Amino acid sequence: MQHSAKACIITIGDELLIGQVIDTNSAFIASELNAIGIWVKRRVAVGDNWDEIWNALDQESKSADIILITGGLGPTADDITKPLLCKYFNGKLVTDPTVLEQNRYLFENIFRRPFTERNQKQAEVPDTCTVIPNKRGTAPAMLFEKNGILFVSMPGVPHEMKGIMTDSVIPLLRQRFKGTVIAHRTLLTAGIGESNLADHIMQWEEQLPANIKLAYLPSFGMVRLRLTITVSEQESGLKELDSQFHTLKQLVREWMVTDEDRSIPQVVAALLKKHNRTLSTAESCTGGYIAHLITKEAGASQYYDGGVVSYSNRIKQQLLQVKQATLDQHGAVSEETVREMAEGTLQTMNTDYALAISGIMGPDGGSEKKPVGLVWVAVAHRNKMVTQQFNFRFDRNRNIEMSANNALNLLRKLIIDTTN
Amino acid sequence: MQHSAKACIITIGDELLIGQVIDTNSAFIASELNAIGIWVKRRVAVGDNWDEIWNALDQESKSADIILITGGLGPTADDITKPLLCKYFNGKLVTDPTVLEQNRYLFENIFRRPFTERNQKQAEVPDTCTVIPNKRGTAPAMLFEKNGILFVSMPGVPHEMKGIMTDSVIPLLRQRFKGTVIAHRTLLTAGIGESNLADHIMQWEEQLPANIKLAYLPSFGMVRLRLTITVSEQESGLKELDSQFHTLKQLVREWMVTDEDRSIPQVVAALLKKHNRTLSTAESCTGGYIAHLITKEAGASQYYDGGVVSYSNRIKQQLLQVKQATLDQHGAVSEETVREMAEGTLQTMNTDYALAISGIMGPDGGSEKKPVGLVWVAVAHRNKMVTQQFNFRFDRNRNIEMSANNALNLLRKLIIDTTN
Repeated sequence: MQHSAKACIITIGDELLIGQVIDTNSAFIASELNAIGIWVKRRVAVGDNWDEIWNALDQESKSADIILITGGLGPTADDITKPLLCKYFNGKLVTDPTVLEQNRYLFENIFRRPFTERNQKQAEVPDTCTVIPNKRGTAPAMLFEKNGILFVSMPGVPHEMKGIMTDSVIPLLRQRFKGTVIAHRTLLTAGIGESNLADHIMQWEEQLPANIKLAYLPSFGMVRLRLTITVSEQESGLKELDSQFHTLKQLVREWMVTDEDRSIPQVVAALLKKHNRTLSTAESCTGGYIAHLITKEAGASQYYDGGVVSYSNRIKQQLLQVKQATLDQHGAVSEETVREMAEGTLQTMNTDYALAISGIMGPDGGSEKKPVGLVWVAVAHRNKMVTQQFNFRFDRNRNIEMSANNALNLLRKLIIDTTN
Repeated sequence: MQHSAKACIITIGDELLIGQVIDTNSAFIASELNAIGIWVKRRVAVGDNWDEIWNALDQESKSADIILITGGLGPTADDITKPLLCKYFNGKLVTDPTVLEQNRYLFENIFRRPFTERNQKQAEVPDTCTVIPNKRGTAPAMLFEKNGILFVSMPGVPHEMKGIMTDSVIPLLRQRFKGTVIAHRTLLTAGIGESNLADHIMQWEEQLPANIKLAYLPSFGMVRLRLTITVSEQESGLKELDSQFHTLKQLVREWMVTDEDRSIPQVVAALLKKHNRTLSTAESCTGGYIAHLITKEAGASQYYDGGVVSYSNRIKQQLLQVKQATLDQHGAVSEETVREMAEGTLQTMNTDYALAISGIMGPDGGSEKKPVGLVWVAVAHRNKMVTQQFNFRFDRNRNIEMSANNALNLLRKLIIDTTN
């Protein structure tokens, strides 16, 4: 097995060290590098501090072939990365005319704001770097090379960094580091815990060849299983990977949601599109989160008509025709209520499927008979309705996530049942 | 100025290095440590690899007083952290009877699944550690001490880690590292870019004393400004911080959303609660995301009645009484349509305020006249309606986030206008 190129990601910014911002950039960069066979060895986050940044560059360049840096390139005074890089790579700051002109154009024609001296300084770069253009913002990316190691410094604004990675950095690295392939096969399970799943597939797992690794990735009531192989382009390891993945699928078929690297909303979307069916939702406890998970996928209007967030009982009655007597007798969190919510939604929205959910997310609102974490879900098709009760016991955010995942999984099963 | 204790966070797991999982644990840990005056110096993520973990422990203990480790403690075979910690701290694995009994109870009475050998092994801990109980799961946390440095190893499941931090680790560290205080003052602005804001407050920023730092934290159309001071408990630095913060507030009052460390949904929630008013929503392009932002706050049912996700024109007509003629003449993304959506919502839901939004989030669905990123928002009170057009130019997810923030900010202004 050939060793693939090794990368390190350095993220810069005090905001990452005081917990005000969650680092989503690293995950994106890692996933892009991985897809072209570059293994991320370490990720390091340091503050806006000269010595810390300098030491991180020194230290990480001892073991990495590629160092990707994000953050610290904005126009404001807490940014020290550019002068540091200039010194680290023995350069001096010069104005890049192309960047200057692009930024002038942006300020004068798009932002319609004065092009100040501070903005003009963003076009300054060390003369020892190759400028990588940033089509989506004013701070360019910079490429340096030192002792055979590549350094790429990018702005920390996620959509700018993503554009630069996709447009320039990935094609450049793909060209430079040919030879190895990291391949994954991923499947998603629901309804079984991590340790029981591990017991169930233990014998198969023990016989896996050394170059294939299995990882368990639990998330809100689901467990993703990922098989990974690292091989040279010439080797035929992908056949072995596919064969092992085939066996794994057989072993977990009872709980398998998908054998692709997809989320549960993406699986539901694919089923609805494939069978040309439509969906509507009625959410109480999840408060629009399921609708959001569905509509954050591009093209959702093909299969999703809309929904009601019926946070109060009044809205349940008025927009979903839930009966006063049902609410009085059984309460808002009950099988009877979610049944009527689903029926009401199906009729009002006139879609093929409806999903209705009501529960107690906490921290308040629970009682002895109906504790925090109790959730009722109904999924309905014209001739079929399925309901299920869930009992979670977590904090509010986790209960919302668990409720959404489990409700969408119940819907997935109903779509399969009613389209076969 | 006294130096505060320095911490390093080490997160373990291949899933962090291939980008399959976003690391939210580090932000939580950093924010908790920061609040008790402990400065996080570095964050490092390494894979499930013996040498990498070992080296990270060696390296980080050179400059930190506290090392917090998460991940790598689950019941499955990809976990190597526990045997490594056992060897690193010269111990041998022994069964902790308290953990064993807790786990047996959980499996037999709560999970109702067999308590297998694999599950029993979770109660094994190195005999050189102090066990920190995990009330929310089966893998306990472990405390080690070596050369005066504290090491705490916690499971990576976020809600378990959070519980352990809050219940045990923070009280323990607070007791141990008295003396310094890190204090922040944070405000949120909207409607002005980072560089213009920097120009506007440049003169004030330049005269800030050396122990007060200013950071710019832009996020989806808003910029958070954070002032930080580090002082010993005896010093009177907080007065200076408050005085500087007071000046800053004056300088940015035109764009200031809040002078507390709150998100825009939290600001809107506080206003509605304070004035005892109610809200409903009608979302097209944001597809339930605004409803989710509102309802993820505990206690939202006090001021939020519900909403409609009117993803199709049919739902806009049927549930929100938008006229066919309006849609034909002006289209779904128009001032006229969001006006009728807001009026329809106010009437149907009978709330004090309504928020309506319609736009084109992309990547498809744009035209020359109505490009991707065009968004119309209407916010309404019984006697007053305000509309605004926005033009974003980003990817789908970013457009959804920008739309939600800007719509909520328009609503915030209307609530203030109509309650004064």
